[in-house]
Order: sequence, then structure tokens, then C-alpha cells
Amino acid sequence: MCGTCNGDTAGSAAAPTTTRPESASTSNGAYPARGKPKSSPYQSVQDYISNVNNFKIIESTLREGEQFANAFFDTETKIKIARAIDNFGCDYIELTSPVSSPQSYEDCKTICGLGLKAKILTHVRCNMEDAKKAVECGVSGVDLVIGTSSFLREYSHGKSMELIQKTALEVIEYLQSTGVEIRFSSEDSFRSDLVDILALYKAVDKAGVHRVSYMANSNPGVVGCDIELHCHDDTGCAVANAHSGLEAGATHIDTSVLGIGERNGITPLGAFMARMVVTAPDYVTKKYNLKALKALEELVADAVQINIPFNNPITGFCAFTHKAGIHAKAILANPSTYEIIDPSLFGLTRYVSINSRITGWNAVKSRVEQLGLKMTDEQIKEVTAKIKQMADIRPLAIDDTDSIIRSYHLDLQQ
Amino acid sequence: MCGTCNGDTAGSAAAPTTTRPESASTSNGAYPARGKPKSSPYQSVQDYISNVNNFKIIESTLREGEQFANAFFDTETKIKIARAIDNFGCDYIELTSPVSSPQSYEDCKTICGLGLKAKILTHVRCNMEDAKKAVECGVSGVDLVIGTSSFLREYSHGKSMELIQKTALEVIEYLQSTGVEIRFSSEDSFRSDLVDILALYKAVDKAGVHRVSYMANSNPGVVGCDIELHCHDDTGCAVANAHSGLEAGATHIDTSVLGIGERNGITPLGAFMARMVVTAPDYVTKKYNLKALKALEELVADAVQINIPFNNPITGFCAFTHKAGIHAKAILANPSTYEIIDPSLFGLTRYVSINSRITGWNAVKSRVEQLGLKMTDEQIKEVTAKIKQMADIRPLAIDDTDSIIRSYHLDLQQ
Repeated sequence: MCGTCNGDTAGSAAAPTTTRPESASTSNGAYPARGKPKSSPYQSVQDYISNVNNFKIIESTLREGEQFANAFFDTETKIKIARAIDNFGCDYIELTSPVSSPQSYEDCKTICGLGLKAKILTHVRCNMEDAKKAVECGVSGVDLVIGTSSFLREYSHGKSMELIQKTALEVIEYLQSTGVEIRFSSEDSFRSDLVDILALYKAVDKAGVHRVSYMANSNPGVVGCDIELHCHDDTGCAVANAHSGLEAGATHIDTSVLGIGERNGITPLGAFMARMVVTAPDYVTKKYNLKALKALEELVADAVQINIPFNNPITGFCAFTHKAGIHAKAILANPSTYEIIDPSLFGLTRYVSINSRITGWNAVKSRVEQLGLKMTDEQIKEVTAKIKQMADIRPLAIDDTDSIIRSYHLDLQQ
Repeated sequence: MCGTCNGDTAGSAAAPTTTRPESASTSNGAYPARGKPKSSPYQSVQDYISNVNNFKIIESTLREGEQFANAFFDTETKIKIARAIDNFGCDYIELTSPVSSPQSYEDCKTICGLGLKAKILTHVRCNMEDAKKAVECGVSGVDLVIGTSSFLREYSHGKSMELIQKTALEVIEYLQSTGVEIRFSSEDSFRSDLVDILALYKAVDKAGVHRVSYMANSNPGVVGCDIELHCHDDTGCAVANAHSGLEAGATHIDTSVLGIGERNGITPLGAFMARMVVTAPDYVTKKYNLKALKALEELVADAVQINIPFNNPITGFCAFTHKAGIHAKAILANPSTYEIIDPSLFGLTRYVSINSRITGWNAVKSRVEQLGLKMTDEQIKEVTAKIKQMADIRPLAIDDTDSIIRSYHLDLQQ
């Protein structure tokens, strides 16, 4: 559904480097497995090519993220961010092209020399000069990109499909001689001619690239290599597109911390983790250092001078706050009633708000018990009515509500 | 994909109140139609039940939004928000249950009396007492809700499916006698027993409700009434789920301004508009007052004391900012190369940033022309290198870049 880059939700794809999804028998405390039961009416042939239990992350905060309007990363900041992404457990770290500027070149060399567990990639235009600069820096892999739609061919680089393919094969041959991982990517794939683009991908796959970045429901069998997805978030669908892509056989997902990138960015690492920890709890909790997410997001937010969005999945200030009485009652009895994610997996806690007119007496009862006060259910219902009355008049903080409860309790003793 | 409320992406649904999607022959200035061409390999039987060109919005900022942690709406604010939502063109405005508090009751009556074009709904528990209070307030429609999963039946209300159905049918019969629109909804539908829930929906449909709020790929033919979707955004998939729901036959989508609601909220009105203006440009641009979106979002952000998220679709501060050289070049030649949405539809403008090391000489050339200076392409490439050098050292603002350009130009005259 992302119009300018890859990431359609539709159909199946190639790349049968896939294992079967693990069975959904995992357990997370009070949280039951959400995977598909064996007899699910939703099960389909796509489950057999799905990589939701078996994906890799290409973390692009230091490439796509540098294209964010507010981003200026000095060397020290880049190193801090690279180490934090590595510590989180991402498989790859993608860097700005070393051709962009002299400092970009130096920083690429520096980060390649840090000895991180993550493989270092850089993202360059598909030409020999850029590819050589990339290799000079010591990267583990080179991500080649060129626009293939008639729009980009006309308005960006002006090259024909024949010339694109000829250049691509030359660059790929050179890169193979250096031993780096090679990814080939077309931009604006969904507006490219389907036959043209399938022919191009077939050719680069045959030439031996490790990965392509393209997804469509009409290319099964066209490529045998891995498939990477890069989804922009202009219409708020980047996470869902990444998930659907994995279901359809994609193997690698591009993310950036908080989604920073061109315009309003790409698939955010945190929101993607929120989605995937539900879909593939075993894989995600074992592989990624989820408790490090908040600090990683704060590091990047600080570096680009933005606030964490109020509605950010997981780390938004109220992502685990429950307010309506009907919700609070059920949450207090069993958190999985209204929580799809256990906050403790991310080192966070839930909060049940009772400071509003839409609260209920079960939530107030829990607070009364926390305060160590004794009241009957009837008394709690009465003090709940008092809280609602006050909350009708003005916003309440937790100490306001506590005062109402304490003063009501005191009156009972008289 | 939303675990706790409705909104699966899967499959087809009932409710063939649907017309065929309009053909994708619309044109928006430089923006070509993005709809499916007639010969699209993506076309399927689902296109025939799709409502992407024919949906209605139930705007729930004054109900779901009041469940947002920061929300306290006094009467005056509620009226302002209701009028702004009405002015935007939403079909329905949903209000907090009048049973929640005395002021909620009064406010519901007040808003019903404003004479808005939008129909006023309120969302109440499925029992006779709540239904009667709703009717007293003068609403056009009543949204009934009850939890049906074993989780909610055990931990929330403790009722059996038989008792749920018996109560529902009594309440529906009463509401029919008053002439209001009736919606019946189960909560946590995806964790409910499929047979139980289909039987319940069949029964309420037969009893004559206008709308149900439930979606699954195994209920075609079960109900003949309209279908509403309420998608929470815990894993960042609410917009995509709403879109997929429409494709599968849903007719009504719940939104709130900026997505405010319980936890991190529901489908945001603005992001949903971003998605739908691409899918159904004719329908959306004719029906909704898109230029009023920014003011509506600012009104609500101010009322609940939050910042508009930096990455908000459409109104985020950089949603139409282009920075990398390769993007800027194409955008300057033809905006639709990297913009899925025309900002002018929302009364906004694009911005091409040249103040970074990843800028390119085509973007700088455009700025040189804006400044009224004359330079050859070679000279522009040289000044671009100077800008990149400086941007390697520190963050640049637009006046810094302009100074570099002007001073280089001055040197040329010497």
C-alpha cells in the first residue's frame, strides 16, 4: 500500500529460503499464544512461505534516518547509535552512501571498524564509482539502488531499462569479486512495468545477488534469493505492509528507530517489534533485547530533537494506561483482556487511571486496596460516584482522587 | 491484526450493501490515478464487495477519545470539537455513554440539540437501563457493546452467551420501538468462539439491527446489515486494518482525531484520510473537507495537551519535506515521483531541504534559481560540494546555505 517504495500487502512471493512457522504453543505468563491454532479457518497456503517467525532486520537509522528533516549526526552520535542498534540485536546496520560527503566516507570506515556483531551495509547508487567507494570503506555488504518506474527513469536518472540492466550486471560482477554481500533494489517498483522489472530481477538473481528489494504477488519463482522490504509510512501502513510482506515470503525488513526518514519516514523499529512480538513471541523475545528499546528510542529522539510521539506503540506515555471503567475492571482481573502486549517484556509497567468520569468502581476498589483502606463494595460505589462528580467539573490527578477516597474513608470512621 | 478489538485483515465478509469500486480514471493535477487498472493482475473477487469507494466514518473523539489518558473535555470543548468534526464531513459523531456521569448525560443532550449534519450516536453497555438513558438524550443512534470472548465473559461481566443473546434481543426490541439506529457490537471478537459469535450476530441481524461491529473471513452470508470496524493501534496497524476491512466488505470505520483513545488509541482520522485519498481520490476529495484537517487536529491536540507526532501522516512537520539529493532532483521535476499525496489537497505545501550533506546539485540549482542568481551547472556542482563540506561539520539552516551560495556567487563576480 506504500506508493513510492516497496511494500504491497498483496499475495505471495518468491524466495523459498523459508522454514515453516513455528507452532503457536508459546506462553508468556498470563498471555496466551496468539498464533494460529492448527485447525484455524484462517490457515492458507501462504503460511508455508511465511517468514514471520524467521525475519532479519536491516536497521537504517544511519541511512534512511539521516534523510529525516531534523537529522544531523556527527561521528560520535553515529557511533553511539550504531552501538545501541547492535546491542538491541539487529542483524544489519545500513549507513549513508560514502559518496554523499567526505565525512560520510570517513564515518562509514569508522563504523565498519567498530567490530560490531551486526553486519554493516551501505546504500549506494547502482554505478561502478559508488560501488568502489563502498568497498573501500570495508562494509560487509553493498545495497544497490536504482529507480525503474517510467516516472523515475524520466525524471530522475534518464536511463533505459536495457542500460539499467547492463550497468547492474557490471557492478554486481565487480562486487562479487570483492566478496561482499550484494543487494539489488529498484525504487518505485509498483509503478514500474511488470514485465520489465521481472526480467531485471531474474537477471540480477541469476547473476548471483544475495538479496533483492522487491515484492509483488506475480513473481513467485522469479528469484531464488532473499527478499528485503522497505516501506514508507506516508499513509500510516508501513508496519502492516512489512508484516504482510513477511507473510508473503519476504525475509528482511528495513526499519529505523522511531521510523525517522524522508518525509514522515519508514517502518519504525519499535512499532514493528510491537507487531512481531505478538505474531512470533518466541523468535522475537529470544533474539531482540526488547528492554533496550526505550533507551534506544530516547537516544535517537534526543539526537534529532523530537518528542516520542504520544501514540508510539509500546513507549508512548500511555501505551499501557487503562482508563474506562469497563476496561479497568477486566485488566485488573486479567491483563490480557485488553492488552495485546505484556509491558514487562519491554521493562515497562501498566497503569490503571481512576481519575476520570469514565472510571468504574472495580478500578477504584483496586486503588482503595493499594491505599490499605477497608471499605465495603457499597461504600466503594459511593466514593466512585463522588470521584465521577468531581471529574465532571475539572481534570483530576491521582492525588486528587486519593484525597477524595481518603476523606470519604475518614468520614466513615466518624 | 488488532488483538483486542475488531479489525483483522483477512478475507471477505458479508454485507453486500456494496457498489462496485469506481474506475480509477480520476486525475489530481500531476498525480496520476493510483487505482487498479482494468487489467491489473491484482484484481480479485474481493473487489466486488469492497467499500473503499463508499465508506462512512464514525468519529469517536468524543467517546473513544475521552478514554485517552490526557482527555478531559468540558462542555464548551466538546461542542467545539463536535462542530469541527461536523464541518470536516464525518457521517457520525459518537459520544461517551450518558450513564458515565451526570455531566456526560447533559453534554449528550446538548450535542444532540446542536442541529449538526452528522448523526449523533452514543456507545452504551448492552442493557435496558443504559439504552433508555441514551434514548432520553435524543441521539440518532445507539451503539450497543458487550464482550463475548471467554476472557471478557470470565473477567468482565460474567454472563453466558445465552444470557448475552437474550438481553441483546430485549434491548434491540426496545430501541426499535423508539426509531433510533441500532448497532450491536461484541468486544474481543477474535478471541470469541466462532460458532457462538456467528450465532449471536445472525440473531441480532435477524432482529433488525442496522449495523454490527465484527469482521471475519468466515461469516459471508451471516449478516445482511452494515458492518462497522473499530481498530486499536497497539501494534501500529489500525489504518491498514481499517483499509483491509473496507476491502472485505466493511461499510463504517471508527476513527478519532489523532487516534486518541484507550492506551495508544485507534485509527487516526488524518492517517485514515491519507490512506483513503490515495485509494479513493474522487470519493474522499468530494466528501471530506480535507483543508480543515490541520485545524481540527490542532484543536484536539490543544484540548488534550499533546504535540502532533513528528511522523503524523499529512500534518507531521516534515510529511512533505524532501532531503536526499536523489529524491529532491526527481521531486523538483515531478512531485509524484516521491509523493503519494498531493499536499495542496490538504492546503499544505512541500519543502525541498538543501541544508545537509546528502543534498544534491539539482536541489541546489533550484534554490539558486529561487534566489535569482545565475550560475552554470559546473558552478552549481562546485557550490554543492561546499555546502556538503560545511554540512559535514555542523547542522545548517536555510540561511546558512543561502549564505554559502551568495558568497560563492559573489566570488564569481570578482
